[in-house]
Amino acid sequence: MIEGIINGSPMGQRRAIAKAITLLESTRADHRAKGDELLTALLPYTGKALRLGISGVPGVGKSTFIETLGVYLIDRGHRVAVLTIDPSSTVSGGSILGDKTRMERLSLLDGAYIRPSPSSGTLGGVAEKTREAMLVCEAAGYDVVLVETVGVGQSETAVSGMTDMFVLLQLPNAGDDLQAIKKGVMELADLVVINKADIDPNAALRARTQIQSALRLFGMHGNPEHALHDAQLWHPRVIQISGLKGQGLDDFWNAVTEFKTLQTANGRLMQRRQQQALAWMWERIHAGLRAAFRQHAGVRDALAGTTQAVADGQLAPSTAARRLLDLAAMPPHPV
Amino acid sequence: MIEGIINGSPMGQRRAIAKAITLLESTRADHRAKGDELLTALLPYTGKALRLGISGVPGVGKSTFIETLGVYLIDRGHRVAVLTIDPSSTVSGGSILGDKTRMERLSLLDGAYIRPSPSSGTLGGVAEKTREAMLVCEAAGYDVVLVETVGVGQSETAVSGMTDMFVLLQLPNAGDDLQAIKKGVMELADLVVINKADIDPNAALRARTQIQSALRLFGMHGNPEHALHDAQLWHPRVIQISGLKGQGLDDFWNAVTEFKTLQTANGRLMQRRQQQALAWMWERIHAGLRAAFRQHAGVRDALAGTTQAVADGQLAPSTAARRLLDLAAMPPHPV
Repeated sequence: MIEGIINGSPMGQRRAIAKAITLLESTRADHRAKGDELLTALLPYTGKALRLGISGVPGVGKSTFIETLGVYLIDRGHRVAVLTIDPSSTVSGGSILGDKTRMERLSLLDGAYIRPSPSSGTLGGVAEKTREAMLVCEAAGYDVVLVETVGVGQSETAVSGMTDMFVLLQLPNAGDDLQAIKKGVMELADLVVINKADIDPNAALRARTQIQSALRLFGMHGNPEHALHDAQLWHPRVIQISGLKGQGLDDFWNAVTEFKTLQTANGRLMQRRQQQALAWMWERIHAGLRAAFRQHAGVRDALAGTTQAVADGQLAPSTAARRLLDLAAMPPHPV
Repeated sequence: MIEGIINGSPMGQRRAIAKAITLLESTRADHRAKGDELLTALLPYTGKALRLGISGVPGVGKSTFIETLGVYLIDRGHRVAVLTIDPSSTVSGGSILGDKTRMERLSLLDGAYIRPSPSSGTLGGVAEKTREAMLVCEAAGYDVVLVETVGVGQSETAVSGMTDMFVLLQLPNAGDDLQAIKKGVMELADLVVINKADIDPNAALRARTQIQSALRLFGMHGNPEHALHDAQLWHPRVIQISGLKGQGLDDFWNAVTEFKTLQTANGRLMQRRQQQALAWMWERIHAGLRAAFRQHAGVRDALAGTTQAVADGQLAPSTAARRLLDLAAMPPHPV
């Protein structure tokens, strides 16, 4: 499988990638062990792609934009993998983004690999599967990985935490930017793209001005501990495009390329990836600890009663926590 | 000690409270066991106070406001406890809020009890100690508990998570509100108080209008799943005061009283407290799990090397997490 991923023919690679991702998504212990072996073997071949997160509320035109961008990049000799994190698919079984009929034009191209969102598990679990799928695609030589997410819940944070650059798609509506600010998504953005700018150019220009001043006012990326010259730093930027008509794609890709060059030169790309890797490790450790706690037989027996006693005000929450931790033979957190 | 807390003379109560809080802040296992016994015994006497969180950036005039408010309330027959969460005191050993010379006028009154921030531990640990101190004060009959925090870091979330009503103090500056929105503090606020409104009444009025429209635009408290009539719901509100001159205290207290009446009638006060208690329990459980993991001998031996391998890109973060969890004999999180 490793050989097929790294050196296969385009069709052979796709088959090997699909097989690898299926293995990595399995919860069987023996599959998991094999999956870890595979990951470790592939790791030296990973890391060379540009990882691009793309977010935006439903209706903003993400799929159209990604398909147009994908075709544009493949035309220019890139190989493009599209991965998706859609937490709605894990809750309802149905996906906001849909799977089957999306990006038909892109999916027919040899240079493209499209994988829908893992459809079960917590957001953390889904994010882990997507990160692992990203590594497999990188080992297969895809040099642009687009990780798409719907603008709901915490998925933007997850996507921003696994990509080199986070792109927020916005509609040319006043108020749309306030929602993004409120939800804390705006401050994740390295690039804000006003899509469907052709529909109402004046509104798009107004939105652009507003978002630019919001980004400036908040000074979201001015990190004083890194004493770099201003010209060495990336300042989040706003551009206008029309994903449907393919307008503005050059602007978009120029901005992405400039970002990559700057972040490579000033060392932040490497830094960001290291921090992401460690944060990912700890996130999985914490999820594992919580699951082990809930599965502990003594805890399982006592949890419902203890929770009820806390809700009824008969037991202080800190006392309840200490009792349950004692049951799990885990000492409480010393203050 | 229990008798002293519940039925002591004012001086006796203060002594018993101080002793109880010292016991609860101890990390010795036998103290902790005694502390839990004490908490469980006191619990039936708690919950009758109004818990008021008060936040705002350094310089906004929190101490002056709290002292003036405290004296105002004691004049009207209330008993007021002032607790503090100051994460800066745990990091630097020095406290932004200071301890000694603050609120001298209030501290001399029989009806007041003032306790500085616990000065060691994580924010979670400090918050736990403050929550427990709050329960002790309630058992002693303090019917208003003010929990103060500085406007830095995550302490506002901690304070909002242990109080019935969260009050945000703001200066009459344009831009101040944007900072609060960016940091996610504005959306916690049940009441925004523009302090020092006497210095520049026009600026205060402008700030009030801006914050009101921000609160409206974001619709931060419109929770559609509770199908209550609009009149049964609390809408976050903005008022102007001068803490130094004592102007606007009637307005402030009227708003607080109205909030309490409404939230009691519509059931949200009870609901909020139950949710807070359960969130508190889980927060402490998770902190305990993390501490136990880090203290595990096998994990301690392997952690540095594993972390380095992840940072160097030799080990996938998910593989590293599974290996460390295996060492701690905790199965990984099934997805």
